[in-house]
Amino acid sequence: MEIEVKAKIDDKERVVKALLSLGFTFLRKEFHEDIYFNGIDRDFKETDEALRVRDSNGKYFLTYKGPKLDKISKSREEIEVEVKDKEKMIKILEKLGFKKVRVIKKVREVYKLNDITACIDEVEGLGLFLELEKEGSLEDVEKLLNILDKLNLRNNIIRKSYLELLEEGIK
Amino acid sequence: MEIEVKAKIDDKERVVKALLSLGFTFLRKEFHEDIYFNGIDRDFKETDEALRVRDSNGKYFLTYKGPKLDKISKSREEIEVEVKDKEKMIKILEKLGFKKVRVIKKVREVYKLNDITACIDEVEGLGLFLELEKEGSLEDVEKLLNILDKLNLRNNIIRKSYLELLEEGIK
Repeated sequence: MEIEVKAKIDDKERVVKALLSLGFTFLRKEFHEDIYFNGIDRDFKETDEALRVRDSNGKYFLTYKGPKLDKISKSREEIEVEVKDKEKMIKILEKLGFKKVRVIKKVREVYKLNDITACIDEVEGLGLFLELEKEGSLEDVEKLLNILDKLNLRNNIIRKSYLELLEEGIK
Repeated sequence: MEIEVKAKIDDKERVVKALLSLGFTFLRKEFHEDIYFNGIDRDFKETDEALRVRDSNGKYFLTYKGPKLDKISKSREEIEVEVKDKEKMIKILEKLGFKKVRVIKKVREVYKLNDITACIDEVEGLGLFLELEKEGSLEDVEKLLNILDKLNLRNNIIRKSYLELLEEGIK
């Protein structure tokens, strides 16, 4: 399971410095173009699921996300498979009946400390966010919240996905 | 578009010899394990579509097939994308609501002459078949039928898919 917390950032430089001083190291920069689809027999906005085709620096991924599992974090089941061709994957989804909802573009800086990944995302139309992620169980949420505390971002926590934020027009 | 004709075979050795004498060359042997899924909002048996995850010698493919386009051949739109992980692909389909229909196993010998592919399939529970395929338009059906004539297999032509044949219990 994907344990995840997210917070809005105002001062990127401050957060990067704080991450590095906690022991995080910079891994890489990614350019994401994410195409989100809605369900065939159900509205993913209502069921809190997501289906996405991601183009990340020219590598392509099909991802399913299940409903969020608690009241504070963004933790949820996530199943992802790499696919060799983006356009064909999109075409198969459309033939099956899935409808494109929205394209979300962002630049992601990835930092790592042991099994915890920190992503600083600059999302087109939404601004800057920090995501903290690890594979684990819901008991790990507390670990990620502790890091948010150390970064002074506990009050900026956001449970909504970028898709939800964009769909709601919160810009 | 995938132009395709298929015929039942009784004497494999005879057909292989005839293919070789027509100029076909042997390319490779493949072991297929195909998992077929039914649609979410429609019955693919009724709409004549297909959704399949193929394991071919440890490489994995997701394939969508549209309805057959004429009355004699098996020609239809086919969109296929290679995926890196079979189990995750299957899990994503199941989470989205697709239901497994059947697993079909076969051994395929692939022969080639210019842009025409000839496959001799030994399908578990069904027996031996020849499939002739090429990328093209419906006008190419005649070319493939000519080859079937030369192989003395015109009367053995079958439009039904292996899935349909197995579902109907024709064994």
